[in-house]
Amino acid sequence: MNASLPVVRLTPKANARALRRGFPWVYSNELVLDRRTKGLAPGTVALLEDCERTPLGLVGVTPGSRIAARMLDRDTGTSIDKTWLTARLRKALSLRERLYDAPFYRLVHAESDGLPGVIIDRFGDVAVIQPNAAWAELLLPELAEALAGVTGVGCILKNSGSRGRALEGLDDANAVLLGEVPAAPIAVQMNGATYLADLTGGQKTGLFFDQRPNQAFAALLAQGQTVLDVFSHVGGFALAALAQGATSALAVDGSAPALALATEGAARMGAADRFATRQGDAFDTLAALGVEKARFGLVICDPPAFAPAKPALEAGLRAYERIAKLAAPLVDEDGYLVLCSCSHAADLGSFTGACLRGIGRAGRRAQLLHTGFAGPDHPLLPQLAESGYLKALVFRL
Amino acid sequence: MNASLPVVRLTPKANARALRRGFPWVYSNELVLDRRTKGLAPGTVALLEDCERTPLGLVGVTPGSRIAARMLDRDTGTSIDKTWLTARLRKALSLRERLYDAPFYRLVHAESDGLPGVIIDRFGDVAVIQPNAAWAELLLPELAEALAGVTGVGCILKNSGSRGRALEGLDDANAVLLGEVPAAPIAVQMNGATYLADLTGGQKTGLFFDQRPNQAFAALLAQGQTVLDVFSHVGGFALAALAQGATSALAVDGSAPALALATEGAARMGAADRFATRQGDAFDTLAALGVEKARFGLVICDPPAFAPAKPALEAGLRAYERIAKLAAPLVDEDGYLVLCSCSHAADLGSFTGACLRGIGRAGRRAQLLHTGFAGPDHPLLPQLAESGYLKALVFRL
Repeated sequence: MNASLPVVRLTPKANARALRRGFPWVYSNELVLDRRTKGLAPGTVALLEDCERTPLGLVGVTPGSRIAARMLDRDTGTSIDKTWLTARLRKALSLRERLYDAPFYRLVHAESDGLPGVIIDRFGDVAVIQPNAAWAELLLPELAEALAGVTGVGCILKNSGSRGRALEGLDDANAVLLGEVPAAPIAVQMNGATYLADLTGGQKTGLFFDQRPNQAFAALLAQGQTVLDVFSHVGGFALAALAQGATSALAVDGSAPALALATEGAARMGAADRFATRQGDAFDTLAALGVEKARFGLVICDPPAFAPAKPALEAGLRAYERIAKLAAPLVDEDGYLVLCSCSHAADLGSFTGACLRGIGRAGRRAQLLHTGFAGPDHPLLPQLAESGYLKALVFRL
Repeated sequence: MNASLPVVRLTPKANARALRRGFPWVYSNELVLDRRTKGLAPGTVALLEDCERTPLGLVGVTPGSRIAARMLDRDTGTSIDKTWLTARLRKALSLRERLYDAPFYRLVHAESDGLPGVIIDRFGDVAVIQPNAAWAELLLPELAEALAGVTGVGCILKNSGSRGRALEGLDDANAVLLGEVPAAPIAVQMNGATYLADLTGGQKTGLFFDQRPNQAFAALLAQGQTVLDVFSHVGGFALAALAQGATSALAVDGSAPALALATEGAARMGAADRFATRQGDAFDTLAALGVEKARFGLVICDPPAFAPAKPALEAGLRAYERIAKLAAPLVDEDGYLVLCSCSHAADLGSFTGACLRGIGRAGRRAQLLHTGFAGPDHPLLPQLAESGYLKALVFRL
C-alpha cells in the first residue's frame, strides 16, 4: 500500500462493479469531491477506495474533469514512475514488433494499452506523444525518458492538438521533448505505398495509421481500376491503390498542404503520371463529378467524424447517407465503393443503414464484401467500448 | 413480361416494401396460398405480384416451405435459364478472380451472389454445388452446364448435406454432375499452408474458406509461439500458424479423419515435426490441458455453431463463455486468444460479451486486437442480415 498517496473515494452510488471488471474511468459524480479532493493538483496520482474503504487501485485524478479519475493500476503497491511507464511501453512495443516489419505504427492507444489518455504514434526514429490526460502531463518528462529508453527513438514531439486536453484543463502548446524537429516530412512505407507525414504542420500526428488494413483490402480491388479517393488527406487510399496497380487515382481533399504531400508521395512511388488531385469541398466535388458523369472502378470516401458524439448522431447519419448517395452514381457497374466512418456515436448498424439508404436512393444495389475496423495497433479495451470508432464498409455495386 | 409463367401474389399484409428494397424472401404467410399456388411443383419459377397486381419480379416458389418464394430477378422480362445462370456465375467469378491468385474459394454465396439458396465452392478443377433451394434443384443440369462453361472445371459434385434442403422438401442424395470423383483429397494452398480437402467423405465441402482472413491474422501472431488449435478440423488455424513460423502446433478435434488430413497437410508442408494432434471432446481436452497446466503463446477456439438459431441462443452463449473460461488459463501472459463463433443467432455484441465473461471468470483481462468476419468470397446481402454469421475475436491477455 502506498501510505504516502492521497486517498480518493467512490460515492455509494458509483459503479464499483464496473471498475472491478476493468472499466477504467470514475466520473465526477461517482467520486466524493470534498475540499481535500477538489484541492488536488490535476494529474495527482491517488489511491482509489470504494465507499467501504476497500482499495481499488491507483488513479490519476483530475478533480475538475467529467472523468474525475482514470485507473492506472489495480495493484495498489506499485509506484507510478519511470519504471512503471517503461513496463507499459515494453508491453505495447512487443505487440507492435510482432505485427509490423518496420517501426511505423500507433505504439500506445491510451486506455487499451494501460496508459489512460496517452496516444503515442511512432514514425521510425521519431515519436509523437499526445498526453491527453493530466496525470500524463505531470509525468511527461518520465514518459519521454521511458519512451526513449524502450524504443531508442532520437526525437520525441509533444502534440497538444487534441480536444480532449481542454476537458482536462491542459493547454494546447506543442513542444519538442527530445532531439530536433524533423526538417522535412517523414516518408512512411505502408501497404507498398509511400506516404509523407508532416509531424509538425499536418493534421493530428501527420498520418493516420488506423486505416492500414482497410487500405490494404481496398487496394486488393484496385488493380486495373480507375480510383477516386475522397477526403484523401495525404493520399491514404489513393496511393495504396496505385501501389496495387490502379490505372489512375484522383484524390479529393479540402486541404492543399495535404494534397501536396499526397502528390509528393505519388512522385516518390514513380506514380506521378497516374495521380491527380482536386482541392475543394468533398460534397461539392462529389456533386460536380456526378454532373460530369465521371465513373470510377473504385470509389472511397473516408470523411472526418460527422457524428463525434451522441447529440450530433442524427445529423451525422444524414451526412453519411448524403455521401453514399453522391458517391454511388460515380461507381461503375460491378465496381466497388468503400465508405468509412470514424464517429464514435454512429455504431456499425446505424452507419451501415445510412450507407445503404444512400446507395438505395441513388438507385443502386449492393453486396457487402468486407467490414473492417481500425488496425491492431489500435486495440480496444472491451470494457470501454464494444465496438471501435472506425468502421470501413466495402460494397460491390 | 413472361406471359407463360404462373403468377403468385402477396397478401395485403406482406412486406412488399422490404422486397422492393432488396429483401429476397417471401414467407409463407405473405403469399396467397390458394389451391393453384399450392399445386405448383416445388421450385417452379413464377411471376410475383403485390396485392395490387403490380409485378415485383421472378421468384422460385416452394409452396410447402416457410420461405415460400425466393426472388430471382426483379426484371420480369428475363428468363431463368442457362444464359441467366451464366451471367450470374460470371459476375460472381469476376469478384473472386480479382481477390485470389488461385481458383480456391467460395464462388457463389447464395442470395448475396444473386443465386438464392445456392452455394458453390471451388477447389481448382473441382466445384461442389449445394443446391439448397428447390428452384436450383430443378435447374441443376443447366446450372452445372453454366458452371462448367464459365469456370472450365472438369468435375462438378453435388453435395446434399445441408439441413436447409429438408425444409425445401429436397433429398440428401449426393451426386456427380460432371467428370469423376477425385480419387484423393485435394491439396489447397491458403495463407502459405497446405490443406487437404476431402470433397466426398469430409464435413460439408471438405474445407471452410470463410476463416481465411482470420487465419491469416492469427498466423501473424504465431511466429516463435506454441499454438493450440481447438476444433481444428483439417488444421485451419494450426497449419497457417506453422506456415508463419510457430514453433509447435497442437490440433484438437473430435474427428479422427479430419485430424488425419491435418497431419497429412503438415507433412506436405515439411512441418510434421512441429505438429501434433489430440482427438477428443474439445471441452474435455481444454479441461485436461488446464489440469496439466499446459501453456501456449496462441490459443484458437473455432467451435461449431452453438447457437444456430434463436431458441438455442442462451445455451449457446453459455457454451461460448465456457470455452473462453477454459481456454484463457492456457494462454501465456501477454499471449493471444482467438475465439470464433459461426452462430447466426449470436450477434457480435452478445458473443463478445460471452467471451469477456469467460475470460474474466478465468481471472484474466484482455485487449481486443481484431474483430474479423467471413472473407470477401462470402459477401453479405445487406438487406438479409446486418452482420454475418462468422465472427472472430482476437484478444491479447
